[in-house]
Amino acid sequence: MIAILKAGTSDVQKASLIRWLEDTGLEVHTYPGENTTILGLIGDISRVDIPLLQSMQIVEAVHRVSDPFKQANRKFHPQDTVVEVGNVKIGGGHFAVIAGPCSVESEEQIIAVAQAVKAGGAEILRGGAFKPRTSPYAFQGLREAGIRLLVEAKKATGLPIITEIMTVSALHLDEDVDIIQVGARNMQNFDLLTELGKSKKPVLLKRGLASTLQELLMSAEYIMREGNAQVILCERGIRTFETHTRNTLDLSAVPVLKELSHLPVMVDPSHGTGVARYVSPMALAAAASGADGVMLEVHQNPACALCDGAQALTPAEFEEVNQKMRKICSIIG
Amino acid sequence: MIAILKAGTSDVQKASLIRWLEDTGLEVHTYPGENTTILGLIGDISRVDIPLLQSMQIVEAVHRVSDPFKQANRKFHPQDTVVEVGNVKIGGGHFAVIAGPCSVESEEQIIAVAQAVKAGGAEILRGGAFKPRTSPYAFQGLREAGIRLLVEAKKATGLPIITEIMTVSALHLDEDVDIIQVGARNMQNFDLLTELGKSKKPVLLKRGLASTLQELLMSAEYIMREGNAQVILCERGIRTFETHTRNTLDLSAVPVLKELSHLPVMVDPSHGTGVARYVSPMALAAAASGADGVMLEVHQNPACALCDGAQALTPAEFEEVNQKMRKICSIIG
Amino acid sequence: MIAILKAGTSDVQKASLIRWLEDTGLEVHTYPGENTTILGLIGDISRVDIPLLQSMQIVEAVHRVSDPFKQANRKFHPQDTVVEVGNVKIGGGHFAVIAGPCSVESEEQIIAVAQAVKAGGAEILRGGAFKPRTSPYAFQGLREAGIRLLVEAKKATGLPIITEIMTVSALHLDEDVDIIQVGARNMQNFDLLTELGKSKKPVLLKRGLASTLQELLMSAEYIMREGNAQVILCERGIRTFETHTRNTLDLSAVPVLKELSHLPVMVDPSHGTGVARYVSPMALAAAASGADGVMLEVHQNPACALCDGAQALTPAEFEEVNQKMRKICSIIG
Amino acid sequence: MIAILKAGTSDVQKASLIRWLEDTGLEVHTYPGENTTILGLIGDISRVDIPLLQSMQIVEAVHRVSDPFKQANRKFHPQDTVVEVGNVKIGGGHFAVIAGPCSVESEEQIIAVAQAVKAGGAEILRGGAFKPRTSPYAFQGLREAGIRLLVEAKKATGLPIITEIMTVSALHLDEDVDIIQVGARNMQNFDLLTELGKSKKPVLLKRGLASTLQELLMSAEYIMREGNAQVILCERGIRTFETHTRNTLDLSAVPVLKELSHLPVMVDPSHGTGVARYVSPMALAAAASGADGVMLEVHQNPACALCDGAQALTPAEFEEVNQKMRKICSIIG
Repeated sequence: MIAILKAGTSDVQKASLIRWLEDTGLEVHTYPGENTTILGLIGDISRVDIPLLQSMQIVEAVHRVSDPFKQANRKFHPQDTVVEVGNVKIGGGHFAVIAGPCSVESEEQIIAVAQAVKAGGAEILRGGAFKPRTSPYAFQGLREAGIRLLVEAKKATGLPIITEIMTVSALHLDEDVDIIQVGARNMQNFDLLTELGKSKKPVLLKRGLASTLQELLMSAEYIMREGNAQVILCERGIRTFETHTRNTLDLSAVPVLKELSHLPVMVDPSHGTGVARYVSPMALAAAASGADGVMLEVHQNPACALCDGAQALTPAEFEEVNQKMRKICSIIG
Repeated sequence: MIAILKAGTSDVQKASLIRWLEDTGLEVHTYPGENTTILGLIGDISRVDIPLLQSMQIVEAVHRVSDPFKQANRKFHPQDTVVEVGNVKIGGGHFAVIAGPCSVESEEQIIAVAQAVKAGGAEILRGGAFKPRTSPYAFQGLREAGIRLLVEAKKATGLPIITEIMTVSALHLDEDVDIIQVGARNMQNFDLLTELGKSKKPVLLKRGLASTLQELLMSAEYIMREGNAQVILCERGIRTFETHTRNTLDLSAVPVLKELSHLPVMVDPSHGTGVARYVSPMALAAAASGADGVMLEVHQNPACALCDGAQALTPAEFEEVNQKMRKICSIIG
Repeated sequence: MIAILKAGTSDVQKASLIRWLEDTGLEVHTYPGENTTILGLIGDISRVDIPLLQSMQIVEAVHRVSDPFKQANRKFHPQDTVVEVGNVKIGGGHFAVIAGPCSVESEEQIIAVAQAVKAGGAEILRGGAFKPRTSPYAFQGLREAGIRLLVEAKKATGLPIITEIMTVSALHLDEDVDIIQVGARNMQNFDLLTELGKSKKPVLLKRGLASTLQELLMSAEYIMREGNAQVILCERGIRTFETHTRNTLDLSAVPVLKELSHLPVMVDPSHGTGVARYVSPMALAAAASGADGVMLEVHQNPACALCDGAQALTPAEFEEVNQKMRKICSIIG
Repeated sequence: MIAILKAGTSDVQKASLIRWLEDTGLEVHTYPGENTTILGLIGDISRVDIPLLQSMQIVEAVHRVSDPFKQANRKFHPQDTVVEVGNVKIGGGHFAVIAGPCSVESEEQIIAVAQAVKAGGAEILRGGAFKPRTSPYAFQGLREAGIRLLVEAKKATGLPIITEIMTVSALHLDEDVDIIQVGARNMQNFDLLTELGKSKKPVLLKRGLASTLQELLMSAEYIMREGNAQVILCERGIRTFETHTRNTLDLSAVPVLKELSHLPVMVDPSHGTGVARYVSPMALAAAASGADGVMLEVHQNPACALCDGAQALTPAEFEEVNQKMRKICSIIG
């Protein structure tokens, strides 16, 4: 870490600051410049209160030299992490496709969709049982019953399953779930992350609506530090001023995260755009950007000719986009 | 609610949509226009999947006529809610000042700060015991021990206390806490909100970094729906592109929330700016904007002459800004 | 347009508002609801001051039924616009690749790059002569001399050329330029747009850093209204809180703009990311998202082994990404 | 400036980079650390292409030590700049109030409003003649005729006048205008800024919707570098995701700008909120935050009882807020 001191800092102040830093156990190197003095700080940086240091009157600026994330960092773990779920691999050149309905609604529905997405090329089944909803008056999901129905669909099709968990107290329900999803609103629910770190199950961690990529990696770090290295990062759109899409899908996150970290990176274009007719173009773009997979909402509602699903693809649309994604993956190599 | 149909919608499609809407229990009024048909929907709107409706191919747009929040809505509850904590009132013309350190560090520290902020005019003591931190390697607070020290400071000074809670499992620790704070990262931790709704304690609910004011009110609704009407809303800065301040303090939130809701509205300029020397101007501005109070970080560190605290005021600075805020409140009436 | 009146609006107020609206020439249809009255307004909406209407005390909300952009609107012009420059077509299934250096630096440089990008598959040459720079102390481009050098490179290679223009007074310099570029900072320089509307040259219009897609289309409308229908829209990244990339490239803009408008849509991943090693993945993603082309910065600097250009590709990288983009275009069809 | 090199940089690469930097005229100091080497660069930093340096493969990060703005910088000009217009002073403890209608509509209107705001305590009259509008179909202002009417109002009341200019070609019309306003959309219209720098008139420079405070200061620098030091900075709201207000008024900009620069800082709460009933609270907050003045929209429309103006105050509301602002200024000192 580097601290740049303001012009006019007295020698007494400088010495006092250096003593304070050395008291935290750091080694301090002084580099006098034309108008400023630069301090190079070596050692366990996590012991310094960086905002406090930045706010000192004699300090012009503080800059980290090293990344604050360790276990998720590609620098210390150059080869790609590959998460394995049954026969499915995610990361390290393996492009995985997760598909299924937004919510589990009934046994009939989830089994029908599971069969349809399997036929269309999906390798993992998604389905919401616990639904985080902005309004307390909106449908909150079938909860425990929803998870049981997902497990039925897994038995019927052989597809591994992924579902979102919102609280530590619901973790025991996930025995038969293959991947646990942490939603955008829970990306910084640190107690939940810590508990998941003690689990042996892969975790798909979604980026928060206003979270930087570094914050996403720090949340992965909460899980990994507890011993669970099976973390999949997922870009799902950030909040901006644009209103034609529900969120702004930040596909640049894919190459940035792949550079910074060895963890697999997936993309959720369904939540990222919120509009079914923009999902396929964004799924193709995600594949072209180098993502390790996508998660897509697919529904099947032949009874309601009007409904095309706010952000869900039909099975036929899914099959088409799946084939195109596979071809794009083979081109980009 | 109003649904506007696209030009070119056939009578068959129109009839099919109307039947679908009526099946959900709504009353549908049709209003044919020049190029479009408008449907007026009357009844329990929460039974309609609005994004689904918006996404239908024959639907141009859907607009709500009524607000989605009910119990927090000033329309149905015109008079100001006043939250009372001991002798302190918040809302309805009562301007409350909460002050204290970012973290509880030791008995000596918290009691000294408590006495200092009381002398400076604070009515409620704040202090962090459970600290949500971006990094798992950073200090996470004294946790249970921190709450015990806060209670000691309460006994020593008579000041009511407020502290942040991060999980349902820690709620039992809060018996002697007067106001429970929900932090920005937990604004949409719906299980936590629901549990707090079952409590009898006042809740200070902070706006999330990327949350709209409507979402903040919907989260208040989660608490109020369970029977706890003692909710204090708190603006603490949103995330934008500007980097000179840690967040962008959105003071317009004060008049907007006061108009939409009867709940008290406080402002946290310490987290809102993240820089001590901007805190006083923003505290004064908050008072002038019509807020029902402010929450300020104050620390006391005579041993470390260099430290002025990233975002904390000294007791002397606090006393000065408190006096000015009181005068501003008497001017704006 | 629809205006929703507040509950409790008196008949006298209602009649007064309707009279005011009719005085502007609109036809007003009244639709009484349960708690609210809805007014349907038919006619030339541009004659109503919509913010004023929204702000009236008896008005709950105002919603447009029709889009404010006309000539750029696909509803009134369903077939794709194809912009032709020499033998190059942009739009309507034709994917165009523009490449070249950020700035024109010398005759030797621009001709060498022009030859390299032509060999690598580029169809149009870009190069900055007038450079908008945040700092007045930074290099502002070779200006007139830069345009003359671009014209030399056009003669040497046969490639059509595109360059940015910043003021009306510089328009006369563009006689030999094939496409005039309007930069993000000038997207709402309405005098410049109006002048370009009187020109016969194609205009590439970049989205502003904080501009919505509707605002981009309204700026296109400024050009088209004057008689110049040769407008190419260009997504180049918006400003968000994320700092790993210079801007956040909003690729969802591609399917949204293609749906709303018949104009060609290009993407600039070089400015969109600001980092050379993220440019190729985002160029491939742009092709997969359905864009009508990309604009890429390419430089050639064999003398400086250290320099890889902040956001520029080498000729070899360009050739590779160009081939992959072409293959992706053939897959998505 | 400081450049931090990556771990593993070879001595050859290091020497090559240092040579390249020295060739630009900089003095390079080397500071070897544990894993990294730090280069301290002294001299004319504006000669280095910073993004290029940042993008080099051996460079981990680059940090500026000094601010890029010079003439606007308080470090080099500690005392407040006071802009004088007739008898009115702005800055240095003088709080100035500018008021008037959004647009000049007629001689009768502008003179009536001018007299009303003068009676209410305004010191400078505002009024739009050239109106930047998102839509080409919207009213663009009375243009030259509007400026002539403003001059009439100045003669009738003695109030100095301010109006917005959008192009260099209209500058000659401003002979009788006292302050020239640069709107948010033109904050980076560098040709316009340069021309205004050659003028002798004070310039009120509004912050762009997506502009950082540093960018605002750099735009002031464009004006000041040409010899015109009479620049007033104006916060008018930035674009965020919140929709209850038209923009998010960033009042923290006031203390930040006052710290960074000696220039006066005003606030425009009318455009900042876009809603008349939020304007007064935000004007009071602006005064409390330490601003050097506010600019308010005021209109007078007794004929239209329904109209309360999207963001305009009535003369009575203006007089009340003006008195309260003056009292707040006397409290904050």
